[in-house]
Amino acid sequence: MTFVFATAEDAEEAFYEAIGRSDLDTLMSVWADDEEIVCIHPTGQRLSGATAIRESWQNIFATNPSFNVRVTHQVRWESVLIAVHSIVETLCLGDDPSQHGPMLSTNVFIRGANGWRLLSRHTSAAADALGDDTAAFEPHSSSRHTLH
Amino acid sequence: MTFVFATAEDAEEAFYEAIGRSDLDTLMSVWADDEEIVCIHPTGQRLSGATAIRESWQNIFATNPSFNVRVTHQVRWESVLIAVHSIVETLCLGDDPSQHGPMLSTNVFIRGANGWRLLSRHTSAAADALGDDTAAFEPHSSSRHTLH
Repeated sequence: MTFVFATAEDAEEAFYEAIGRSDLDTLMSVWADDEEIVCIHPTGQRLSGATAIRESWQNIFATNPSFNVRVTHQVRWESVLIAVHSIVETLCLGDDPSQHGPMLSTNVFIRGANGWRLLSRHTSAAADALGDDTAAFEPHSSSRHTLH
Repeated sequence: MTFVFATAEDAEEAFYEAIGRSDLDTLMSVWADDEEIVCIHPTGQRLSGATAIRESWQNIFATNPSFNVRVTHQVRWESVLIAVHSIVETLCLGDDPSQHGPMLSTNVFIRGANGWRLLSRHTSAAADALGDDTAAFEPHSSSRHTLH
């Protein structure tokens, strides 16, 4: 199954829609066909290469209720061949009306022969107060992030 | 003060050396001259634009002992105009011989008229056991990361 995404936005939309359907094949089709693709989850696991990334998302879909990702507060940098999207994500889990997050994702897309593809995704918990940088770096203290 | 970095590696090396010297001007000179530059700190703060990023690092240098960053376990994707480096960072703080981390950083560099520049940096705490993806995503649980 091969999709051709005309824009980075199309590829990103397909990625999040695939998450909402727990659709592993479509989700994987968004990634670039490249050994150096990297996916970093909010728990701090880094997966590199299609096999490891597929196994990771298969495990996520198998062990969690279905969930949708709501995307807000985008900062986008785009050129002819590359797009870097910094976004804020919130999660809606199964039938639970409450939202979980916020999380920050940096999604890097590249344009190749088969259109736009996801090259790198880095996700981590956002500070409770986005935009407050007064405690941006505290190596001596614990940094505790809770999704609730 | 303007440096011209011939490679993304040169720009990255200058960035970490500037951190080690608490050298704010050199650190800022590595960033691209672009409104959409983004820096995400391990605490979950996202800064966008040179002014906010400069203030943030100024605060980091002012409120912490000097520290060096050791870079390992790189996954690099590079093309003619863009480079995406996924790296593991450990910190050495002041005279403290112990190391802090690991942290994961995704550094995105672009090549422009003035050589290679940093466009986006996303840093977050790494899982204690890198490569273990068995708990890659647990939206119901707390995700606690400690730098010690």
